[in-house]
Amino acid sequence: MDNFVFHNPTKIFFGKGQIEHLGKEIINYGKKVLFVTGGGSVKRIGLYDKVIEILKEEKCNVYELSGVEPNPRLSTVKKGIEICKSEGIEVVLAVGGGSVLDASKAIAAGAKYDGDVWDFYTRKATIEDALPLATVLTLAATGSEMNGNSVVTNWETKEKLGTNSIHIYPKFSILDPTYTYSVPRDQTVYGIVDIMAHVFEQYFSHTSNTPLQDQFCESVMRTVIDNSEAVLERPDDYDARSNILLSGTMALNNIIRMGMAGDWATHMIEHEVSAIYDIPHGGGLAIIFPNWMKYVLDEGIEKFKRYAIEVWKVDATGKTDKEIALEGIEKTREFFNRIGAPSRLKDYNIGDENIELMAEKVVKRRTVGQYKKLTKEDVKNILTMSL
Amino acid sequence: MDNFVFHNPTKIFFGKGQIEHLGKEIINYGKKVLFVTGGGSVKRIGLYDKVIEILKEEKCNVYELSGVEPNPRLSTVKKGIEICKSEGIEVVLAVGGGSVLDASKAIAAGAKYDGDVWDFYTRKATIEDALPLATVLTLAATGSEMNGNSVVTNWETKEKLGTNSIHIYPKFSILDPTYTYSVPRDQTVYGIVDIMAHVFEQYFSHTSNTPLQDQFCESVMRTVIDNSEAVLERPDDYDARSNILLSGTMALNNIIRMGMAGDWATHMIEHEVSAIYDIPHGGGLAIIFPNWMKYVLDEGIEKFKRYAIEVWKVDATGKTDKEIALEGIEKTREFFNRIGAPSRLKDYNIGDENIELMAEKVVKRRTVGQYKKLTKEDVKNILTMSL
Repeated sequence: MDNFVFHNPTKIFFGKGQIEHLGKEIINYGKKVLFVTGGGSVKRIGLYDKVIEILKEEKCNVYELSGVEPNPRLSTVKKGIEICKSEGIEVVLAVGGGSVLDASKAIAAGAKYDGDVWDFYTRKATIEDALPLATVLTLAATGSEMNGNSVVTNWETKEKLGTNSIHIYPKFSILDPTYTYSVPRDQTVYGIVDIMAHVFEQYFSHTSNTPLQDQFCESVMRTVIDNSEAVLERPDDYDARSNILLSGTMALNNIIRMGMAGDWATHMIEHEVSAIYDIPHGGGLAIIFPNWMKYVLDEGIEKFKRYAIEVWKVDATGKTDKEIALEGIEKTREFFNRIGAPSRLKDYNIGDENIELMAEKVVKRRTVGQYKKLTKEDVKNILTMSL
Repeated sequence: MDNFVFHNPTKIFFGKGQIEHLGKEIINYGKKVLFVTGGGSVKRIGLYDKVIEILKEEKCNVYELSGVEPNPRLSTVKKGIEICKSEGIEVVLAVGGGSVLDASKAIAAGAKYDGDVWDFYTRKATIEDALPLATVLTLAATGSEMNGNSVVTNWETKEKLGTNSIHIYPKFSILDPTYTYSVPRDQTVYGIVDIMAHVFEQYFSHTSNTPLQDQFCESVMRTVIDNSEAVLERPDDYDARSNILLSGTMALNNIIRMGMAGDWATHMIEHEVSAIYDIPHGGGLAIIFPNWMKYVLDEGIEKFKRYAIEVWKVDATGKTDKEIALEGIEKTREFFNRIGAPSRLKDYNIGDENIELMAEKVVKRRTVGQYKKLTKEDVKNILTMSL
């Protein structure tokens, strides 16, 4: 394994009713609260009223920013920063899914920065400080509740970029599986794909000697696969929702990948697709990932063989390594199909009209891929396979 | 799974040469440093001189406490507290194995407490504050480098007791596998047993619906088993030492047991044995654990069956659940024997003369066991099986 630094200071409250800790925890950071939400789901499930009630009880001054988009937009982030600066906000409270959390991280960092918050995403600047952030999660997917990642879309430049900083880890996050009961079927599916994709990006690594990390990754993947059908069949299955929710957090809080170099090419490709077409991130990942797998397979069949056997229980008898590996990839595609994720870009009415542009943008800012370093041509090939 | 709170703020620097971060990190907490060590091993491997050099470079005022015992003693802890209070120490730096770290945690907490530090161990008081603590680990075993646990022995009352607090998590810990190269064979073995025992205490749980946690536990156990012979045959095998070191940290930093009720009966029993006989903790655990397993087996065969199959690859064909489970326990004993751990108390010349007293002390202060709640009679039976 490689040398590494691990530091994840987020405090997690997991389980039914853990919202009871919100009041006492949040006032550790201040009483002037920016309460950030997305669409109306937090109101529909009664969580909005509950949060307001708790904040009132603690005599907080509550400012609100609602309507954060599924691919959160820079323009919305800037509205939040404006409120923080003009009102002297002391703590940001994000209640919702990954996009609300990611936007809130951008707001928390932007509130302490004199320049344009987009600088953090274009790597013109590094986050040096941020308002404290607390989160209440309502969707198992991005892992944003326990990491320092934030992805924001700049609709003017049609760019979807990420940043990362220790300063934007949530101070605490409340994860109550019952809040995910009412997540619509398609969002549940996209969340599952996103979680699997996060593990893929870390697991498919050339770093040698990572037996514990590999097994941790496989543990998360198997848990997600084993619980997916249950959450789709019985949306209020507490046990299955808990397992998916915990898996989502563990998939992207740096624990399963200590000392491993990740890939992240598929995420970068998908970000450019959804920056142009505004499709669900999980949908895009489901389409592209199995094609990425096929495309990079020859860079290291051993890991794909291991994946097929350990995660998908592929029977290796009488098969070549490549046959075993391909069977694992096929099973990945079958799984995504079975739970209802899309297979092709045309499922979103996307043709080849922007492939050149998207490939260009993928490779524009940084090296892409680690399992296989991808050129613009490679990205075009993967996108073409995905049509 | 049960509701849980997870919060582990320790920053980990893992890998060869990570000591280079010590200087810049420690001065975040102060320049008046209490440098705590155990026997002479940190001097023999050159680490002592290196640390002194780094602290001098940062112009720290260094005070020293050396000679912390393998089962760290309250009297030594009190010396450390005295130095902290009289010299106005700002940060405690523990360099050594688990006992040095545990003693340093006690010192850090005691330095901020007006009463007797032993109060934290007898549960007369709760740790509310502590000096910041940093650690450089030289032995894979206790997990103390990334948790808030501390175990101290009061030689006057012949009691070995533990405490736990968020305030005594190390601020940062440096884990360099090369520092463990020169650990003597027997200490390496005891460390391996200790790591396995920590996982056992968490894994053998009646909490239902913990698929991810169970798989994480199994991942750690398999990694330890798979790398044990390599570290014993080739003490300077970097890969194997890394895997054991990381496993030791992951075995007891609360990650693998989120939402699970642990047992800890075997640790409590062993603590009373080593409080009287001053035997190595890992040696005591190797003797007692397989007997505990046999004794509590009927409280839940399913988990022991799973353990046998997932960890020891026991072939289940044609066997009853109990036969499978017993085979897993037998393999545990064989593993401990194979690496050179003791099997019976008589290997340490311990007879039945103090069984009554030890059993009495085990059950004196708290409920013992969760997989099976143990009475004094149960503890006597397990100790008798271990003679």
